[in-house]
Parts: sequence; C-alpha cells; structure tokens
Amino acid sequence: MKTGGLTGISWEAFHALPLEEKRPYLERRGGRGEPFHTLFAQQFDRPLLERLAALSNRIRFLSKSKDGALWLKSLLCHKRAMLYFSQPSSRTFLSHLAACQILGLTTGSVRDTSISSEFKGESKEDSIRTFSSYFDMIIMRTPEQGLAEKMSWELSNSERPVPILNAGSGKDQHPTQALLDIYTLLRSFETKGGLHDRTVVFCGDLLRGRTVHSLSYLLTNFPRIKQVFVAPPQLQADESTFAALRAKGVEFEVSDDLRSVVPLADAVYMTRIQDEWDAAKGDSAKIDTSRFKFGAEELALLPENGIIMHPLPRRDEIAVCCDHDPRAMYWRQMRNGMWIRAALIATTFGFEDEILARPL
Amino acid sequence: MKTGGLTGISWEAFHALPLEEKRPYLERRGGRGEPFHTLFAQQFDRPLLERLAALSNRIRFLSKSKDGALWLKSLLCHKRAMLYFSQPSSRTFLSHLAACQILGLTTGSVRDTSISSEFKGESKEDSIRTFSSYFDMIIMRTPEQGLAEKMSWELSNSERPVPILNAGSGKDQHPTQALLDIYTLLRSFETKGGLHDRTVVFCGDLLRGRTVHSLSYLLTNFPRIKQVFVAPPQLQADESTFAALRAKGVEFEVSDDLRSVVPLADAVYMTRIQDEWDAAKGDSAKIDTSRFKFGAEELALLPENGIIMHPLPRRDEIAVCCDHDPRAMYWRQMRNGMWIRAALIATTFGFEDEILARPL
Amino acid sequence: MKTGGLTGISWEAFHALPLEEKRPYLERRGGRGEPFHTLFAQQFDRPLLERLAALSNRIRFLSKSKDGALWLKSLLCHKRAMLYFSQPSSRTFLSHLAACQILGLTTGSVRDTSISSEFKGESKEDSIRTFSSYFDMIIMRTPEQGLAEKMSWELSNSERPVPILNAGSGKDQHPTQALLDIYTLLRSFETKGGLHDRTVVFCGDLLRGRTVHSLSYLLTNFPRIKQVFVAPPQLQADESTFAALRAKGVEFEVSDDLRSVVPLADAVYMTRIQDEWDAAKGDSAKIDTSRFKFGAEELALLPENGIIMHPLPRRDEIAVCCDHDPRAMYWRQMRNGMWIRAALIATTFGFEDEILARPL
Repeated sequence: MKTGGLTGISWEAFHALPLEEKRPYLERRGGRGEPFHTLFAQQFDRPLLERLAALSNRIRFLSKSKDGALWLKSLLCHKRAMLYFSQPSSRTFLSHLAACQILGLTTGSVRDTSISSEFKGESKEDSIRTFSSYFDMIIMRTPEQGLAEKMSWELSNSERPVPILNAGSGKDQHPTQALLDIYTLLRSFETKGGLHDRTVVFCGDLLRGRTVHSLSYLLTNFPRIKQVFVAPPQLQADESTFAALRAKGVEFEVSDDLRSVVPLADAVYMTRIQDEWDAAKGDSAKIDTSRFKFGAEELALLPENGIIMHPLPRRDEIAVCCDHDPRAMYWRQMRNGMWIRAALIATTFGFEDEILARPL
Repeated sequence: MKTGGLTGISWEAFHALPLEEKRPYLERRGGRGEPFHTLFAQQFDRPLLERLAALSNRIRFLSKSKDGALWLKSLLCHKRAMLYFSQPSSRTFLSHLAACQILGLTTGSVRDTSISSEFKGESKEDSIRTFSSYFDMIIMRTPEQGLAEKMSWELSNSERPVPILNAGSGKDQHPTQALLDIYTLLRSFETKGGLHDRTVVFCGDLLRGRTVHSLSYLLTNFPRIKQVFVAPPQLQADESTFAALRAKGVEFEVSDDLRSVVPLADAVYMTRIQDEWDAAKGDSAKIDTSRFKFGAEELALLPENGIIMHPLPRRDEIAVCCDHDPRAMYWRQMRNGMWIRAALIATTFGFEDEILARPL
Repeated sequence: MKTGGLTGISWEAFHALPLEEKRPYLERRGGRGEPFHTLFAQQFDRPLLERLAALSNRIRFLSKSKDGALWLKSLLCHKRAMLYFSQPSSRTFLSHLAACQILGLTTGSVRDTSISSEFKGESKEDSIRTFSSYFDMIIMRTPEQGLAEKMSWELSNSERPVPILNAGSGKDQHPTQALLDIYTLLRSFETKGGLHDRTVVFCGDLLRGRTVHSLSYLLTNFPRIKQVFVAPPQLQADESTFAALRAKGVEFEVSDDLRSVVPLADAVYMTRIQDEWDAAKGDSAKIDTSRFKFGAEELALLPENGIIMHPLPRRDEIAVCCDHDPRAMYWRQMRNGMWIRAALIATTFGFEDEILARPL
C-alpha cells in the first residue's frame, strides 16, 4: 500500500498546524496531491476536484456494462474496508458501502456501539486501532470532532498505517458530501460551459449545516462563482464564512427572500433545519421558516437551466411536486455521492490511472 | 436492465385496479409473464410456478459442485441488492441474503430504523428512493400494507426503475413464502405422480396467518386439490377464503378435529398462533389450542407418503420428536425458500434461460 | 463437505464423556485430527497447533500479494458462513468476519436477537438449525455454556451437518483465543529457538478469564514452559488450574508481585478485570489492583527478548506509553487472531494441504 506521509511530526505539532499546512501530511506518498487520509474539504483544490470528477465519470460509465462492472470489482477485491458509523446515518453509510462494492472491497461494519467492546471500557482509540488490524481502510462517522484526525496520526505512526476516510465528524467536517456537491455542479454544467461565472444560492439552515460551509469553501476554487445566502436571521451563515469569502475576493450576498433570488440562480442549494443541534429542544420550531422552502411557485421562477440541489434527507424544504421536474437534481446528486466516493477510494489506493486508462 | 411496465398509468388508477388486472403492469417487459416487481401471490399462475420450480431445482443442483456454484455467483455479481427489513425477521432476511449470495449479488441492509435517517424526519418514500439510488433491487419487509406497491409505482416512474421484491407487508401479503410452500409440495410429489388429486390440511391459526391465505389461493391453480381447514372456531379461516374457493369450484372442508383428518392427508400444514396480532395482549392464550398440535400420536396417523409442513418459526405446534421423521418436511421447506428466492431474483433480472441452459 | 464423526452416539452419552474422549467425535472425517466442530481448546495438541501455525504463516504471506490474496479468496467462495453473536463483541466478530473474507466465504450475521425470530418464541435450537439451512458453517458466540456442543451434535445428526465454530461460550470456552495466543508465542520465539524452556507470566484477573485457563492448558503441550500466576488473592487462578499443572508435572509459581517476576519473563500475559461477572455490581472495584498493571517501570524491567501480550480489550492494565515499544505484542497478537482463524476455517473444510502446496 502507498502510505501517507503523516510521520516525523508529533501529534501536538501536527494538530496545531493551520488546515492548509496539514494537507501535505495527509497526501498519498508519490502522488500528485491525492489524499491518503481524507479529513477536510480543504484538502481538495480545483485540479484534484476535476481529476476526481473525471474519474467518477469513468467509473460511472464502466459500471453500465457487465464487463466494465466486473473489471472494476476486480481492482480492490484483495482489500477490506471497515465502516465505523457511531452516528445514525443511512445515506452516507449505504453510499460508502456501495462505493466499496463497486471496487470489489469486502466490508465490515460497526454501527451500534452497544454491541461492541466499548461497553467493556475500551477507549475509542483502541477500538479504531482494532479495526486497522483486520481492515485495510477505515471509513468513519462519529459525533466527536477531531477523532478522525487523531486516528490518522495514530495509524500512520503504527505498524498498520491504513487510510482513514472521514464520513462526517460532529458539526465539523463532512468532506465527501462537499465532493459530491461539487461533482454534481461540474456534471450539471459540463455541457453548458462549465463551472464558472455562476450564481449559487444556499437556502435554509446555513448556520449549522457543515455541508454549506464546506461547499462554500470549495466553490472558491472556481472562477467567478457568486454565492447567495438565504436564511432566517437566526440561521444565517456566520461571520467566519463571510470573512473567508471576503479574504478571497469572492462575491456574495445575504438575503432573507428566496423568491427574489431564484430567478437569477444557476443552482439553488436547499438545506434542512438541523434541529438535532438545538440548544433546547424545540428552539428551531420557534423560527418562522415558511419562506425558506422550495415549492411550485419557486419552481416557476427558476431559470430553464437552473438546478435544485439538496444534501438529503429532506423534510418539507422541497415539495414532493418538484421531484419529477428535470431541474430537480437532488436524486442524481445522491447517486453522484456513490460515484465520487468510489473515485476517492480508488484514488486512496492509487488506482486512478489504471481506471482512466481502461477503454470503455 | 429489463424494466417493468408500470408506467403510463397514474398511481391512483393503478392502485384502484383489482389484483388480477395489476399483474400485467408488474411483469418484466419482454418476458412470458415473469414478475419485475413481486408484490402478490396472485401474480403467479401454474405455468410460472412450474417454471420457477424447475429453475430452483437447477440452481440447487448447480450449487452442489464448486464449478456450478462459481458459475452461478458470476451471473449477477455486477448487481447490488438492498434488504430493507423494518420488521423483525431472521429467517426471511437470511434466506434472501443467501439467495443473493448464491447469484453473486452484493448486499446492503437496513434492519433497525433507529440507526437510519428516518429519525431526521425523512419519509419512507424518500428512504426507499434512496436505496434505489445505490442498489439494483430492493427486497423489503415492512409492517405497512401497500408500501411495496406504492414504491413499485414510484420507482417505475423515476430515473431508477429498480425492481421491488415484497418480503412481507403487514398482515397482507408474503408472496415468496407462498412460492416456497408450493415448491415444497411440487418437490415432494414430483416422483409420486405430481401435485394434483391431493388433500392438503391447514391447521392452527388460519385467521391471521397470511401464509395460509396465499397458499390456499395458489393451490387452486392445481387440479383437484382438496383443502381442509382445521382450527379452533375463533381462529378459523374467514368467509372470504371460503368464498374464493367456492367461486373456483374447489372442494374444501372445515373441521376442528385434527386427528380425524390426518389419516387422509397428503400434506399437513401446521401454523403458529400469531398472538402478536392480538387485539388485547393475551387474548390468544384464552383459546384452547391443545387439540391443534402435531405430536407422536398424529405422526402415527399420517400416511406413509404424507408430509408435514410449517412456515416456521414454531413454538409447540409440532413436537420436537417429529423432527427426525422422514415425513417432516419443514426443515427442507425452509431451505427451499432459499432456492426459490434465488430463482425469483434470477428471473427478475432475466437470467432464467441462461441458467436452464447450463449443463450440470 | 467432509463431515465430522459425531454420529452413532446419543446426545446424553456424548455429553457425559470427559473432554479428552470427546475429541475424536469432533474431528473431520479422513483428516489427521483436524477439527470439524471446534468447541474446546482441548481439541488441539502440539502437532496440530504447529500445523495450524504453519498454515497461518502461509495464509499471511500469500495475502501480501494481490495474486496470493485473490487465490486465497477463490478457495471457499462457494461457501457461506453464519456469524451468530448473541453476546456483545467487536474484536472476535470482526476477526472472524475478516478471516471468512480472506478465504472468500460470504457471510450473514445475527448480532442482536431482538431483531430475530426469538421474540416469536422460537427455541435457540430451531434458530441455529435455521442458520444451518442457509449457511455452510456456523460461527457462534453465546452466553450459554454448552449450546455450541449441543448444536454440534444436533447438526451432525441432521440432514445438514454443517460445522460449528465456538467463538466463545459463557465463562467456559473460547478456543480460538487460545489458538491465537499460542500462535503469537510460536511466531515470537520462532527465530529465537522456539517455544520451549520459557517462562510465561499471567497477570490480572486469573480467576474469571477463560483465556488464561485455556492458554495455561495449551502451554502444557510444549516442553518446559514455566507458568507464573500473578494476581490479587481474590482474583488468583483456582485450585483446579494448579491441580491440572501438577498432574502433568508442569512447573508453576503463584505470586502477588508483578515487578519481581517481570525480569525473568519471556512473555507477560496481562488481563483485564472481568467485572461483568461480578456477583454484586462494584465488587471488583473494592479490590486493590494497582500493583497488577504494566507501565513504564515494568517495561524497564522486561528482558530485551521478552514480549507483552493482552487478549484485549484493555482498560488501564497496560499503559498507552508501552504501545510503541517493539516488545508490545498485543496489536500483532490481535491480528494473529485473524490469520489463525482463517487457518482454522480452511482446515475445517479440508483445504490445508492445498494452501501449503501453493508457492508464494
């Protein structure tokens, strides 16, 4: 296995680095910036995003034929992946599972820590090191911020330096969600001039959705993408998001009127009210969110080439009547998650060139 | 994938059709009546049942050799199946899982909805559509009547028209159980003249077991099968079952005396008291069921060629001392479930001819 | 499948035999003492342990190359294994899962009996017989002593005599843990003169850890292994352990001073206080265990060639600061569990010669 370079630095020193300086430590050795451990959306720049999108396309096309599908399954069938999901999730779990299966990896999973050794007093660090003993990659989703980062360092400095793929850590990072969002935008505008000079509207709970935060960051890699933030005041994105955009000279706008911005949107990115993070139960219910939903009237205002996105699951932010509109991209967006995760896993193990070289 | 024809009709119009008229909409396009979506026992007529039994036999024989088993595993190894079981079950789950594995499908599963996205307020429809994004077939068991039917229509009218296999929906339908029962009868009488001119005795909870209802229906496809219903009055099959038999001119008998009918039986189909459906907890316990059990004395009365069946799990309806009798067919019946489910899945994807053409 | 010989004897007669006399009944027919059902550590003698260790080494080396790994995966890819774990466990579950995957077996699992048929009143015997209908091997961990033994007899006397692998039964037996411990000792001393004339120190909860009991037994198969038992008086190994050693003329020592024995140890086997077996909750907390932990000071006392073992999970019996010492063998010991379990499964199905004959 081509291992990462997260050695020769103490945990404390590594942990204290700013995100940008952590990136090289997380790269696969001998690659061109590809991740070994995938922890942050900030590990991905435009060339890498575009290479991953191309690889996703290729995997997607190969999967259409039985021959292509079998060839893909042969690539990593000597590897085993562990899916450690101590936080509820079905979509993220299943799409990573399917991504592994596309590439032939066999999998194990722990989803309910009540049936695991943790009740015997084992530390999470020991549990994860256990997984590294039996598996060749660890895909993990936990409520604890920083655990994936800590374990990346630990494993890289152990006898079994297996890669970690962060599938969501607390309120913090969910890098593969950001990747699938970018991939969806790249695919959607591929035949329409590309992902630049666009207006992307974010709407809903912009304060607590890590998705919006990461996607907003990644979009700054693409030229002249204007970002519009539409939310009730209590759920508006925080100042640090805006400060980051200002620092990069990215145009953005803040609004509380969805209908006024939809006619100008190339993409409307709807999000769910994340009331599971409410300080007191029911706090979110007191906020008037009725004007931050996408229904028949908003659909009528959306340009012909505009698209509607949503990270899902949804509640009522998008009316079911929009589902069959060709501009509703959220189902395809979800499936894109499977393709980009397969691309990312293949990349982690260094198989990207082999896949791209394979004729369709 | 050869998709089903459940398009060009609104959900409301489809849902309102009588069962018989729904069948053509559920068929695989370009087939000879084979199901794409499998929802009801009523989708299966005698020719189709006999073709499925022949296919099951072939799969069973092929599995005996490593060569044959490997060939079978290559057939659908480019496909992924989702097992969505929101109702407790081990037998049905595991036999579908094994059926998938026999044909090489990889699988994902959701068995406990508390670890899924439903807690975030997602609708069941969205959850199932999610599964269709990542998987090529959905095998589902739910307490809700009609959900499998609804989703069949939804998926057939989406960008990902993947087949649904109903593995049990509420008190309603459990079509693959009926298939495995028929297969067991066909196998048992294969070398004894075939499945006609037989007496089949149903005994136990005939009111609430969907199994009995479906099997009784399917048996009317075979000539001169007399059906005998033995139950305490409170748990006797309901009038609609009898009316259906009368309408088809099928001979049947109602009894409350098991011992008097066992000597005339070709098959005795025992069932469990389904007290999980009791209106008030403990209602069933008040019913005297002592005379509706199969033990050593009943065994002595059973003809030499008669067989004992049970859908399992059992409690004490069949005494353990019967287990080693060669007429006890319930363990083999259970294993038959795995074979017929493999046959059904292969058929859904249009592989039946290829399997039948394979030399042993 | 080569089946075991557990037939021609009644359950009562078999159950009443002393362990040593049970062994031949559990052997694979036509083998050289290899197990068909694996129930007890006592089924393994020195030649068999050494053959399993050699087979584990070979599987381990073959797995290093993609070619070797693929070849291994082809061996048992026509077989399915059931993992029935009704007792919490992650390590034992995952290592058996990985062992199956190394050999290509597909797997099913039941880990939470609340989602299984047991709630419908099915007996455990019927449940396990169900597993045998769909799977070719049953790997089981249960809190009930004797269930694995009972089911071995049941299945051997049924139409589906599939092998049982005991992955832990109550306080009783956990034979594969003993195998991995012996394999770790054999590997560790392979290039240092072999496993004889050594001093093995056991420390911690020696009363309730089935691990220590089994390993102590297996070590008597090797020449001149001195055993030292270090524990607080309340948790010292019981008299039957010592009596067994005396009967075989094995040298041993009892101590309550870890530091005095570490300098003489070839291996220190640390164990966790098993407070889940406390008669009254909190009993163990009243015992002073502070002197039965391995930390920096003990590490300084350990000979250069000595090794530290632990069955894991650990709490604070071994300080984290020991983890990166080359003598800390517990992580490798854990991974050895995967290899020896793969070797055992391959042996159960009669593939040991084929694997040993495969060039690297």
